Amino acid sequence: MKVSNADEAASSEVRMDGVTGTSIQWLASKTDGAPNFAMRRFTMAPGGTIPLHDHPWEHEIYILQGKGTALYGDRKVDIASGDVIFIPGNEPHGYINDGKEDLVFLCMIPNSGDPR
Amino acid sequence: MKVSNADEAASSEVRMDGVTGTSIQWLASKTDGAPNFAMRRFTMAPGGTIPLHDHPWEHEIYILQGKGTALYGDRKVDIASGDVIFIPGNEPHGYINDGKEDLVFLCMIPNSGDPR
Repeated sequence: MKVSNADEAASSEVRMDGVTGTSIQWLASKTDGAPNFAMRRFTMAPGGTIPLHDHPWEHEIYILQGKGTALYGDRKVDIASGDVIFIPGNEPHGYINDGKEDLVFLCMIPNSGDPR
Repeated sequence: MKVSNADEAASSEVRMDGVTGTSIQWLASKTDGAPNFAMRRFTMAPGGTIPLHDHPWEHEIYILQGKGTALYGDRKVDIASGDVIFIPGNEPHGYINDGKEDLVFLCMIPNSGDPR
């Protein structure tokens, strides 16, 4: 068993076309021996954006803190702390922190989506 | 994309030998179309216990609220909000809420561990 605190996990800026104000921490993943899926924590500063994009793997998301907007094709959906989002593979999605505090969420992916 | 609020998810008592004061909510899983892994939220009342047990699948856990103790074979580890736990498959583990408020955590498992 490995126990750690998320606040102490290494953080790096997300570098993807159009992404602003967003950092990622890998909390549990194949580098810890996780055989199937990874848990990451994203922190988006107010105004931060992850534009619409898609990929073959799904997301399971839990909003830990803050408010924002999830983009889903042409749709926009308000999201807030305690919300759960399931995004099937290959479906265009994105997020905007249009709130006044950090938008923090867990985002789990299968190991097939781990680019590292 | 499916957006829901975790507080509105169905909750049921965990019925396993020795478990007390513990409820589970399935937040995203194969019944939502999730192809690889499931996100559950556990709420353990003060005094609640999940005794040592093991199974072939791993856990990835994020503590949302409260304090408690994780059991890992002969070891005991303090856990609290913001902690991340990775438990490899087949390793004996359990949890005790020896705090004064609910101990609430997300626990992700591969679909191979979904008994439903």
